[in-house]
Amino acid sequence: MADQKAVEKLEELGKKLVDDIERESNPRFSTLSRTKSNIVYDKKTGYLRLGSAKEERSFLNVSQSKRFMQTLAISAKCHRFLKENLHTTIRGLFYQLKYSLGEDIEESIFSEQAESNPLIEDLEVALSLKREDLNLNANRKGVLAGNMKIIDRYGNDRVEIDCTKMGRSGWAIPSDVDNDIEFVDVKAKYVLVVEKDALWQRLNEDNFWRKENIILITPQGQASRGTRRIIKKLSDMGLPVYVFTDSDAWGWYIYWTIKTGSINLAYIANDVATPNARFIGVTMADLKKYDFLQNLTIKATELDLKRAQEMLNYEWIKVHKEWVEELQTMLKSKRKLEQDALEGPRLTFVDDYIRDKVKNEEFMP
Amino acid sequence: MADQKAVEKLEELGKKLVDDIERESNPRFSTLSRTKSNIVYDKKTGYLRLGSAKEERSFLNVSQSKRFMQTLAISAKCHRFLKENLHTTIRGLFYQLKYSLGEDIEESIFSEQAESNPLIEDLEVALSLKREDLNLNANRKGVLAGNMKIIDRYGNDRVEIDCTKMGRSGWAIPSDVDNDIEFVDVKAKYVLVVEKDALWQRLNEDNFWRKENIILITPQGQASRGTRRIIKKLSDMGLPVYVFTDSDAWGWYIYWTIKTGSINLAYIANDVATPNARFIGVTMADLKKYDFLQNLTIKATELDLKRAQEMLNYEWIKVHKEWVEELQTMLKSKRKLEQDALEGPRLTFVDDYIRDKVKNEEFMP
Repeated sequence: MADQKAVEKLEELGKKLVDDIERESNPRFSTLSRTKSNIVYDKKTGYLRLGSAKEERSFLNVSQSKRFMQTLAISAKCHRFLKENLHTTIRGLFYQLKYSLGEDIEESIFSEQAESNPLIEDLEVALSLKREDLNLNANRKGVLAGNMKIIDRYGNDRVEIDCTKMGRSGWAIPSDVDNDIEFVDVKAKYVLVVEKDALWQRLNEDNFWRKENIILITPQGQASRGTRRIIKKLSDMGLPVYVFTDSDAWGWYIYWTIKTGSINLAYIANDVATPNARFIGVTMADLKKYDFLQNLTIKATELDLKRAQEMLNYEWIKVHKEWVEELQTMLKSKRKLEQDALEGPRLTFVDDYIRDKVKNEEFMP
Repeated sequence: MADQKAVEKLEELGKKLVDDIERESNPRFSTLSRTKSNIVYDKKTGYLRLGSAKEERSFLNVSQSKRFMQTLAISAKCHRFLKENLHTTIRGLFYQLKYSLGEDIEESIFSEQAESNPLIEDLEVALSLKREDLNLNANRKGVLAGNMKIIDRYGNDRVEIDCTKMGRSGWAIPSDVDNDIEFVDVKAKYVLVVEKDALWQRLNEDNFWRKENIILITPQGQASRGTRRIIKKLSDMGLPVYVFTDSDAWGWYIYWTIKTGSINLAYIANDVATPNARFIGVTMADLKKYDFLQNLTIKATELDLKRAQEMLNYEWIKVHKEWVEELQTMLKSKRKLEQDALEGPRLTFVDDYIRDKVKNEEFMP
């Protein structure tokens, strides 16, 4: 269904350009500007999104005609992938273009790091689609367990996956969690997002998700597009989302990226940002509540301190006095706290910690 | 069962040290040296292993007593983890030690990067166990699909996972694939190890593993301990193992690490090296067979060239004329080839490529 929508949008774009040519007008399409100056924090929605500044891409423009042609080549390829019902990556797409267009597409000027990424983003924004909707898989990372089932149609197959029966491994979150895939029987009280796979495995071994009736996710560090998207989808189903990270620059970055989105993905923020997310810990404030943690802090790095200072200036952070206090505590003490420290007294302490925080609704905004 | 063996070995170590003390002798244990000079390439087995040089660790030695004590503290903790039937990581272990021993364990002198790793390796070697047998999980990475089932006992749970029913995701390979886990109904012709997750997803979407009746694994780059171990186990069950990587320094490194092991893991080579593995591609020789690939090579980096030169000197590589030719072709042409290039003519070309190579037994040693 979503696939059909993408096919139609690509065909509309093609027809529009043919029309332009037949009317002897300069073929062009418009997209929203993705420059930093057009990225705004939207107080109403609570995430970083593109502003309204538009940009035109046109063929009869010396500085644009090559990229214009490449964008059309990409559109044609994606159209075919959708028709074939086959997926690839932007790297696979690069080789298809190199194969068809010959040697004038050199890697140095058209690699995923350099030129093709912005062209694909142009298409995503111009068509209001994600690259996943164009059958382009992004890197995947992240694992899930809990009371939900997945109906996954892929290739010529259809499988039903029970996320309570994935053992020590969990269900590996794919790149595309929208097309030909459904989440059914989602029966959980909340979603817990755990930064580190190690802590996810700890909680999974304790069957924490079953005991508390939750969905347990780890992004395995910074969240991939697919993991951000599934968190958003579960939030849209009405589940509260609690994020559990280290109390350091990297952990905070992971949290705020899940919550308000990021500059890089501002163009699809509505799909991947979860403004309702709350921060559950670990916090510098925990040091007051749990005495033993005071011996388990470690030295903050220069980067931690620099980032903490920067975060004090972010408009979406500085409005929260709890966060200002957290950041200032780290800056003053020059110490940080890892979520693994909760394993200090006993391996299952982390279970009680989460339970307690949820029971007392001790969340940071 | 394996757990019980680990418990017994730890208790034996403890008893031996108590005996030493009671006999008023210096408590000590011995381990094999893991210095580079004691790492040998064993022609008979086909992998890098430790030589016979031993090292003693003793308490009454000023330079060793602190580390000796720490090793015992680690042993005691692991003994408890095994008794509790709970797992953690070396980071969780670090915090347990920091919690019990107090402030004299500072992160700077006892972090996973620095001091605790060699101490755990000491234990692994001294007891002939892997850290996974001591309930210490290592980082996990890697995904599998194909005709096999997994019986996974974890926590208080037991699940059966059918690796033909994992959809687009596949089964995420855990850290420990030995204890409380079984592989049953393994009915496959061979194991295909695909460097990049993107290509694994391509083949998975095509149901390649079902059509060819194989086990399809991606290490997602360099193989984790768990992924190396499962490849080895499948090889021990009699399945041929074919490895499919880029034709560049990183791809070769991934292959040779799977096949002959690595210096870092030489101390557990017998568990993680798969000398029977064969290299299926992509190769510089493919350029002769598949004309279109000639336009799809990319520039080799300085690192690629440097590593290719180094590999020509490795005793386990230079004996194979096919490899010498491969390496010399790259050095001469200064070009390399990615496995993604096989997607150039059409997305499903990679299926035919693999099928063809297997049919004609076109493997490199």
